[in-house]
Amino acid sequence: MSKEINSNDLMSLCKRRGFIWPSFELYGGVAGMFDYGPLGSSMRNNILEVWRDIYKGREGFIEIDSETVNPREVFKASGHVDEFSDLITYCTKCGSAFRADHLVKEFFENPDVLSPKELDDAFVKFDIKCPECGGKLGPVEEFNLMFKTNIGPGSSRVGYLRPETAQGIFVNYLNLYRYNREKLPLGVIQTGRGYRNEIAPRQGMIRMREFNMMEVELFVDPEDKGWIRFPEIENELISLVPNTGNETVMMTVGEAVEKRIIANKVLAYFVYTTQQFLTRLGIDPERLRFRQHLCNEMAHYAKDCWDAEVLLSYGWIEITGIADRGAWDLSRHAEFSGTELTHFKKFDEPREMDVEKIKAKHKALGPRFKDKAKAIAEIMETKQSSDVKDGKLELNLDGEDIVLDGEFFEVVRVREKVSGERVVPHVIEPSHGLDRIFYSVLEHSFSRDEKEDYTTLRLMPEVAPIKVGIFPLMEKDGLDELAMDIYRKVHSPCLEAYYDGSGTIGKRYARMDEIGTPWCITVDYESLSGPDKGTVTIRNRDTSEQKRIQIDSVPEILKNLLSGKPFRDL
Amino acid sequence: MSKEINSNDLMSLCKRRGFIWPSFELYGGVAGMFDYGPLGSSMRNNILEVWRDIYKGREGFIEIDSETVNPREVFKASGHVDEFSDLITYCTKCGSAFRADHLVKEFFENPDVLSPKELDDAFVKFDIKCPECGGKLGPVEEFNLMFKTNIGPGSSRVGYLRPETAQGIFVNYLNLYRYNREKLPLGVIQTGRGYRNEIAPRQGMIRMREFNMMEVELFVDPEDKGWIRFPEIENELISLVPNTGNETVMMTVGEAVEKRIIANKVLAYFVYTTQQFLTRLGIDPERLRFRQHLCNEMAHYAKDCWDAEVLLSYGWIEITGIADRGAWDLSRHAEFSGTELTHFKKFDEPREMDVEKIKAKHKALGPRFKDKAKAIAEIMETKQSSDVKDGKLELNLDGEDIVLDGEFFEVVRVREKVSGERVVPHVIEPSHGLDRIFYSVLEHSFSRDEKEDYTTLRLMPEVAPIKVGIFPLMEKDGLDELAMDIYRKVHSPCLEAYYDGSGTIGKRYARMDEIGTPWCITVDYESLSGPDKGTVTIRNRDTSEQKRIQIDSVPEILKNLLSGKPFRDL
Repeated sequence: MSKEINSNDLMSLCKRRGFIWPSFELYGGVAGMFDYGPLGSSMRNNILEVWRDIYKGREGFIEIDSETVNPREVFKASGHVDEFSDLITYCTKCGSAFRADHLVKEFFENPDVLSPKELDDAFVKFDIKCPECGGKLGPVEEFNLMFKTNIGPGSSRVGYLRPETAQGIFVNYLNLYRYNREKLPLGVIQTGRGYRNEIAPRQGMIRMREFNMMEVELFVDPEDKGWIRFPEIENELISLVPNTGNETVMMTVGEAVEKRIIANKVLAYFVYTTQQFLTRLGIDPERLRFRQHLCNEMAHYAKDCWDAEVLLSYGWIEITGIADRGAWDLSRHAEFSGTELTHFKKFDEPREMDVEKIKAKHKALGPRFKDKAKAIAEIMETKQSSDVKDGKLELNLDGEDIVLDGEFFEVVRVREKVSGERVVPHVIEPSHGLDRIFYSVLEHSFSRDEKEDYTTLRLMPEVAPIKVGIFPLMEKDGLDELAMDIYRKVHSPCLEAYYDGSGTIGKRYARMDEIGTPWCITVDYESLSGPDKGTVTIRNRDTSEQKRIQIDSVPEILKNLLSGKPFRDL
Repeated sequence: MSKEINSNDLMSLCKRRGFIWPSFELYGGVAGMFDYGPLGSSMRNNILEVWRDIYKGREGFIEIDSETVNPREVFKASGHVDEFSDLITYCTKCGSAFRADHLVKEFFENPDVLSPKELDDAFVKFDIKCPECGGKLGPVEEFNLMFKTNIGPGSSRVGYLRPETAQGIFVNYLNLYRYNREKLPLGVIQTGRGYRNEIAPRQGMIRMREFNMMEVELFVDPEDKGWIRFPEIENELISLVPNTGNETVMMTVGEAVEKRIIANKVLAYFVYTTQQFLTRLGIDPERLRFRQHLCNEMAHYAKDCWDAEVLLSYGWIEITGIADRGAWDLSRHAEFSGTELTHFKKFDEPREMDVEKIKAKHKALGPRFKDKAKAIAEIMETKQSSDVKDGKLELNLDGEDIVLDGEFFEVVRVREKVSGERVVPHVIEPSHGLDRIFYSVLEHSFSRDEKEDYTTLRLMPEVAPIKVGIFPLMEKDGLDELAMDIYRKVHSPCLEAYYDGSGTIGKRYARMDEIGTPWCITVDYESLSGPDKGTVTIRNRDTSEQKRIQIDSVPEILKNLLSGKPFRDL
């Protein structure tokens, strides 16, 4: 059997058997869009459940579900309005649009770092014309990759389809923090659609205009980047490509932190968790590595960032990013919304500290504000020194906005007993591309015997869309009814069964092997009478081994197999 | 305890406890948008799982997941581009937008049937001005309720956010039909986002701009509208409001079909299934009815249509529609895509039938088409008489379009043995509004004792977000560690537990009752030593009854309770 795989073969299997269908084929199709068919939809749900089992189950994180259409303010704060773009050029003759960097990829190693000006120059220097019609290419400009729309009538309120689910978590920080009783760490997960209006999508499911994400945002104390379960995994091995070289090195998680290769324990823990997650889904550990972002690749605010990359027929492809995003996200939303997004960190015991306080100048307030002066002074003294902007302090008295300048207050340093301080939590973010993971699992499970013209998807039972095929040897003599009875007893959304009565048993096994069904049960004449009455055969996909089991114990046996009991121990 | 409920009280509980948060409050909010918090997200997933259990489990339907951004062609065919609109008016002075029918609701019983002209006249007649500024209202016009966007660069490819998930199923009909081995019935389910760009959303979660649906599209043979499981439920009672009167009548499902109140058995079966589904979720059967669409309310193509309505603080509100949509959906997409979307219905045995055939007139073809004549004649004879449009037949020979008029062919009737016929399947559609159902379940579970200032959500265990609260009596002496141990053993995404160690036990019970947690487990000093060592108490939400149970049996007991074992039988 060969591990060499052609992505076209796999996509054709996916389409033929109902994993994935290119969207809107009835109307000529739309590039970069795919629908999940019945098998794909079940398998995708199974992947989601493994992710939930780890984050919501083991780690006890909470899940939310926020809106996909967001008002402009959100993405202005996140930076997407200004920076989420690719460089585009339109042909001046036929009007076709191209990603500018794709047109010069033969001439540059990293064309995606070129500026619009550098690309314009490259078009001239290398005499690059429109690939469609040979026309002259227009000036290179930025094309924002968010799908734009309007919320409500008119165009007054601009909205965008979210490019990531993360912002829905950040803008809910205060709600989440209260739900978590104002404690850190605070772990939040969200799955759902993300959108990226690609100029020219390619590479099948790798670059989709509408995609699915599984994101985790973990808010931690900036001064405590340990993790309670770190000791459980510190001796486990991971395969890392640090940005100091280009080599893959294997080391333990503990070593990676000690040698400061991964910035801190909590980040390292979730790099390892990602490895656990992906290999549990069936990603081949030999074709999985964690690559650290290069310095010029990392966002300026990121403390450290690692990509889980898998080797596919397309080359090494990023399927998950695990980043320490520092205080960036909450700081930006605090700045843009004018709302404090912090954690109150209690000291073990109150500390004597110099603190800056606002002190009212009563002598100036009285003459100016008369009978309101006392109330204003009281409000002033609840303010922080950080509330003073450009030497002015703004406050609100019974609905009236009052702006005070330095004449009315002073900032004084006093020594005080302080019970704690406000800090902006840091964010650890394991962000998973669900569709890419889905596709990678299929590629790594794909096994093809060209000589026999036989395909097996060696999917993990937990991930396989159909857990068991149920066949009557023949569709007569009551074999079909008994098989249907077993199907009805076994089949549920958590344990999907497939009844198949047509064709030879060999063909039916082949059909199940091709979609990764781990087990098949056959009702034969022995099931009806003779010494084996009341039994059926069960076959194991990966070994073709068969055993006879009691019909009554079928549900129990399948449950055990699904929870990992080896077939040979049946 | 009172059943009178104020939706504000409930929404405030939802917000405070983390069921539902108005979206984007950090940026001033956006009307008609809500996020699901941790409890809401879990509860919504639980509702989804019940729906899957019924449709994917019991009925064996298949699930797909299609795109939310669709190209214009899809909604041109479905009719949404031309007809999915509300009537709008803008104030000529301040520019505010209003739903025109809302402004005249005091003067008309059914303002939503008025035409733009009638509304313009009504504004004059009743002297209606802008509610914001008193200005003159502009002419009433149509406002399409789909969110519009562009796919890819430029504005050449218009896309819309889908107003329903159903179209994603219809446009995949051929893929689905093949997956189902070209057999009917073919049942397909889909859950996901739908979008409706409301002019002025109101009524909280009832009218959302971004909402969640659970849709079922069942394709059936137009001549066979029975259902295999119908006999199992024909004697069950349902509460119907037929469109022949305005009265609620109780009758059996069988009677409703016999008396031709519900059009056919398969539709009646899914009306009843909807009742099963909703009451299993905790909808009060006394506040649930099925109302038949009035003749002027029903879509012109619908054979019959019923709304499941529940009585909420807003009045009777539709939360599910169950319709026999006839051949409409597939016919429209067939027409607009030029692709046949049919089922080949085999006769039990071949029939002698008169069929219309295209016969080539070779004498005319030869002189005109020379050496191509033979090939053209062959293609012609594969065509159906229905392919003749306006007396002309169009065909394609090696990429060349050829239009032939009556000179070159004739339509003849011949008697032939025919093995079957192509029919356009009819669609039975139970379409559920997930958010409305979610909200209705909360209202019907809400129970408030004003005197005691005590709120209990009497959620069905299957639906409750948290299944069990786990408390140490005190957070010391090892009680906390033991409680945390139990929490870790029990907690999973399918059986969410909540550890709570703060405040009095009474307060902790109250917190769990308020979010509908059916059971609470308390670790006390008896758990650690004495005759009851190794036991904990378990408390039942609805009766406050408590029992001591073995710690080892906690997971088993919770599983049994969840699958319906009565608390008193523990």
